[in-house]
Amino acid sequence: MAVTFPRGWRAGTAACGIKAFTAGASAIPTGQKDDLAVLYSDRPCDAAGVFTTNKVKSATIVIDQLHLRQNRVQAVVVNSGNANACTGAQGYKDALYMAKLTADRLDLDPPQVIVSSTGVIGRYLPMDAVKRGIADACARVDVEGGPAAARAIMTTDTVPKEASAQLDLGGALVRVGGMCKGSGMIHPNMATMLAYLTTDAAVEPGLMASLVKRVADASFNQVTVDGDSSTNDTFLVLANGAAGNRPVAPETPEAGQLEAALLEVARDLARQVARDGEGATRLISVRVTGGASPEEARLAARSVASSSLVKSAIHGGDPNWGRIVCALGYSGADLAIDRLDLSIAGLTVFTRGAGQPVDLEAVRAAFEQPEILIHAELGLGDGVAEAWGCDLSEEYVRINADYTT
Amino acid sequence: MAVTFPRGWRAGTAACGIKAFTAGASAIPTGQKDDLAVLYSDRPCDAAGVFTTNKVKSATIVIDQLHLRQNRVQAVVVNSGNANACTGAQGYKDALYMAKLTADRLDLDPPQVIVSSTGVIGRYLPMDAVKRGIADACARVDVEGGPAAARAIMTTDTVPKEASAQLDLGGALVRVGGMCKGSGMIHPNMATMLAYLTTDAAVEPGLMASLVKRVADASFNQVTVDGDSSTNDTFLVLANGAAGNRPVAPETPEAGQLEAALLEVARDLARQVARDGEGATRLISVRVTGGASPEEARLAARSVASSSLVKSAIHGGDPNWGRIVCALGYSGADLAIDRLDLSIAGLTVFTRGAGQPVDLEAVRAAFEQPEILIHAELGLGDGVAEAWGCDLSEEYVRINADYTT
Repeated sequence: MAVTFPRGWRAGTAACGIKAFTAGASAIPTGQKDDLAVLYSDRPCDAAGVFTTNKVKSATIVIDQLHLRQNRVQAVVVNSGNANACTGAQGYKDALYMAKLTADRLDLDPPQVIVSSTGVIGRYLPMDAVKRGIADACARVDVEGGPAAARAIMTTDTVPKEASAQLDLGGALVRVGGMCKGSGMIHPNMATMLAYLTTDAAVEPGLMASLVKRVADASFNQVTVDGDSSTNDTFLVLANGAAGNRPVAPETPEAGQLEAALLEVARDLARQVARDGEGATRLISVRVTGGASPEEARLAARSVASSSLVKSAIHGGDPNWGRIVCALGYSGADLAIDRLDLSIAGLTVFTRGAGQPVDLEAVRAAFEQPEILIHAELGLGDGVAEAWGCDLSEEYVRINADYTT
Repeated sequence: MAVTFPRGWRAGTAACGIKAFTAGASAIPTGQKDDLAVLYSDRPCDAAGVFTTNKVKSATIVIDQLHLRQNRVQAVVVNSGNANACTGAQGYKDALYMAKLTADRLDLDPPQVIVSSTGVIGRYLPMDAVKRGIADACARVDVEGGPAAARAIMTTDTVPKEASAQLDLGGALVRVGGMCKGSGMIHPNMATMLAYLTTDAAVEPGLMASLVKRVADASFNQVTVDGDSSTNDTFLVLANGAAGNRPVAPETPEAGQLEAALLEVARDLARQVARDGEGATRLISVRVTGGASPEEARLAARSVASSSLVKSAIHGGDPNWGRIVCALGYSGADLAIDRLDLSIAGLTVFTRGAGQPVDLEAVRAAFEQPEILIHAELGLGDGVAEAWGCDLSEEYVRINADYTT
């Protein structure tokens, strides 16, 4: 499964000790996990990306945006353990050198390689280790390599994150695969999120660019907060055409089908990120309907899913729906409290301005399920959105979880 | 000290069991702490307030904004344990009734009373308990009552917060006092902040309204985040004229002197809020200079002071200045990384685009002081601001604090 599920895709990994060397080690630690992955397509892709909005960007982000302009990407090299951010001119040299090393090994031009880094900020990459790792990973690229790649890009993640889908596109079987890294849901935006979707769909050039922002907005941007992102956040979609379908043109039914499949994989990965929050035990899914616009619905859903007080109430089994209303109130989305309906796991707790008599024990029981569905109907328009978060556990929540009980 | 330090001010408190009754108790718990405070001036005040920007507002906020229009406030009643928010029409009735009960006991009109509540959202106030408490507190108003009032308004605060100042205003001694509640610095904006500044200065009507926003912006708004506030946040300034000075007119040197004294007290209180963060052991003071504007400097300073990754790095003694640069990058303020200088406790760690050789042990030692000063010079203009936060301790930070070492 994962990124090598679509045809024509291979991946290889290596253990370089990047984090250890960055911290000053003189040798690779024993038991070093893989920390470098190379993803390779046997033909050029139509590709597009969405990158961090942070004004401080990793050198890799700047290089990638340049490389994507040529739109013939065929490989991605990712290292964990060092973010190559705030590294001045040396950072650009190192990112370019990573592209060149990968290109040389795979017989590509450097602009055909996308470079990602994640880890500590403000330290130079240990390029000797990276160089050895790129050589090793490129030598090992394999159609079975997807799961190992998903593990190699992890930092504080506790589990690798992969997803896949397939669809019939005008008679041809098309596959979509994906992997991502990211956790730290207490402040999801500050921990780097890297996500890669691959497909073997044949598409007209530029199709990925036409849909990538919409897919990101309805998936990864709903476990994070715009404008509050790390130096390295990256979301890439790459279509290599190996499925042999008639190339998908923009604004056709096939384009819609492909976008839906990409979104399905992206949403699956985004939910895995939410579920892998630090200390998380439950997934919180927030559905907002009736928003004044889709963007307002997204704002409102995200605000609830990222509210630490909502998250800690859920962890503590505390049926404190007032915190959900409060989070809707400061979300920035339009809100008329006398039009608001709120339910938790199907139990109506608030209708048009006031709390409802509700079986608090039933709410409490709902909070103990692995996934908790919160639904807010804003009553203002047609905007619909979802967002995902996790509960907050650990000592920090002690004060908040005990607050009403 | 505190709110009864200026002349003509008295305060009384009572233990009502509001939190317990809200949760369904049938009697006041033994050892119940005071949870209701009445602040009383022997003459009408020039008063003004800054209130939450949350679209979901406590009934008290709406009532207070109406009452302030008459500008003859003479008392404030505050309860902790129940926020009277999301309580529909009943909430307005209860807030108005609190004003009326207080006014009756103190021989005032209800619009002369400001009402504040803090605590759980979405539950009706236990008005029998509140009524008894108001009667008791009004009967006990006393010039020595300030410190007890500061304790009565606490919720999750671990210490009461008071401050005071005095100044010579055209030959008259003028006093300023203040109290506030608020902690929960991990997400400062969601825990209600209530703050009250009293003074005996005589002022022309409207002077408080002309300065209250500026004072809030340079103090409490720098430990919180605009637009992300609780349902009940309130900051009030009240001047009763008991000092007998010539009434201060707007835009005079005396107005500047008085504003400076009010700001001194407000900043002192704001820093106490930061220091009282959950599990906090250190105060983080962030000073930004060279911002493109004062507002941009405020944004940038606040972003660093509220960054969980910065806070956890400091707690862990991890000299990870990259996180500070990252927080400046997503603050929304203009930033040119090649003009940025950054120092921690006077040690330069970053100059114009790249990290500097720095004694990491010295940075680590600085992180162990009770107050850590971070200074960012943005090199873009004249904007100057400060913001305050606390370190993050507890289990949550384990992953982040260990990240680079």
